[in-house]
Parts: sequence; C-alpha cells; structure tokens
Amino acid sequence: MDPDALAKAFVEHYYTTFDNNRPGLASLYQDGSMLTFEGQKIQGSPNIVAKLTSLPFSQCHHSITTVDCQPSAATNGMLVFVSGNLQLAGEQHALKFSQMFHLLPTPQGSYYVLNDIFRLNYA
Amino acid sequence: MDPDALAKAFVEHYYTTFDNNRPGLASLYQDGSMLTFEGQKIQGSPNIVAKLTSLPFSQCHHSITTVDCQPSAATNGMLVFVSGNLQLAGEQHALKFSQMFHLLPTPQGSYYVLNDIFRLNYA
Repeated sequence: MDPDALAKAFVEHYYTTFDNNRPGLASLYQDGSMLTFEGQKIQGSPNIVAKLTSLPFSQCHHSITTVDCQPSAATNGMLVFVSGNLQLAGEQHALKFSQMFHLLPTPQGSYYVLNDIFRLNYA
Repeated sequence: MDPDALAKAFVEHYYTTFDNNRPGLASLYQDGSMLTFEGQKIQGSPNIVAKLTSLPFSQCHHSITTVDCQPSAATNGMLVFVSGNLQLAGEQHALKFSQMFHLLPTPQGSYYVLNDIFRLNYA
C-alpha cells in the first residue's frame, strides 16, 4: 500500500472511530503518545481518551477535506496532515479544523499515534 | 530555552524571512527536506526554494495565530504546528493557512526543516 493510501485509510479509520465510538480511540494511542488539543498538552493513551471523551459534545461528524503525508525521520514513521470540517449535533455551522498526526508502526503491522496536534480554524 | 519558546522563535524567523527575503529560506532546508505545498510534493532545498520564490505573488505578510509544538521521535527533533493568516499585496481579504514543520537540530546548534506541509484553509 502506498503511503498516501495508508495515510488516507488511517485518517478515515480515526475519524469514523471518533464519530461512532470515541472510547475506541484508546487502541490508537500508547503511553508515550502526546496530544495537544487547542493548546492543551496531554500525554498517554488513558489521559488522551479521557480528554476526547469529555469534550462538551456527544455527537459529531468529521468531514475530511485534505490529507497530506510525508515519511518521518523515524523508521517507517509517517507524518499526516489533515484539514476538514467538524459538524457538532445541534449546531448550524460546521467548524473548520486542522490536525497533524505522527504515526509509528506497531509490531502487529498497524500504526499508532505518537504525536497529535489539533486546532480549530476560527473564521 | 524551553521548546515552546524555541518553536515560536523559529516560526517568527521563518515567516519574517518568507515575507522579506524569500530566497533566504534556502538555509533552513537541506537536501533531504520535503515540502508538500497545497498537495504538491517537492524535495530538496533548491527545489523547495524555487517553488516558494515562484509563487504567484511578490509581496505577502504572514500573521501567526497559534504555534503548538511537541518533541518528535528524532533526537532533539521538534514538531511545530502553525495556524495563521496570509495577506497578499493587493488582496482585500487575508487567507487562512495551517502549516506543520518537523525541525531537526544542526551541528551548529540551530534547526533545519526536514518536513514541511502547507495548506490554505478555504472558507
């Protein structure tokens, strides 16, 4: 699978899980994983998932606009850059967001998120 | 210097150079550097600077809105995530952009850009 297709598959899996089964994101992070969410720094899968599941909205839908990827300096690592729209239940307008992931391979042949930075793009 | 201050100093230096002396960006990239600019993949400092200096606007001004950073998996490497506005000369409205950099240390105690991904955030 070429890197762009891998990145796109990861991103689709990530946001589908976020939108339908947020606690399921736990398997995509590890103890050393870092999330910076709107400037707040959080480390480790349990803390990251606690943050993501406690966001002040229960239902949401991410629409992906662009996915870019590059190989990272880490062996078989991948940098993924996403832009898109986040629609919250009950809100009229979608929010624009940008997010980057640094993915590292797992021994099982999959990927986990080492670095994750999320920002809303306010108009 | 703490990582957040370093990241902010790099970002200010980068965009000041971009806005005032675009060819000067050459020293911030190396042969292995990668740029993905609006989906177009470019590799190596000379090609990257050729792209950036041939963009269809001569004067511009970047205003930084947010700078986030995390340590990368590479030794003393740093991931930097920027959002901001790009004002082109003669245009009424600024364009919103997001950009990520993966910075690696140089032997001289400075940083260069290994990975660079840029996207405009269209409204």
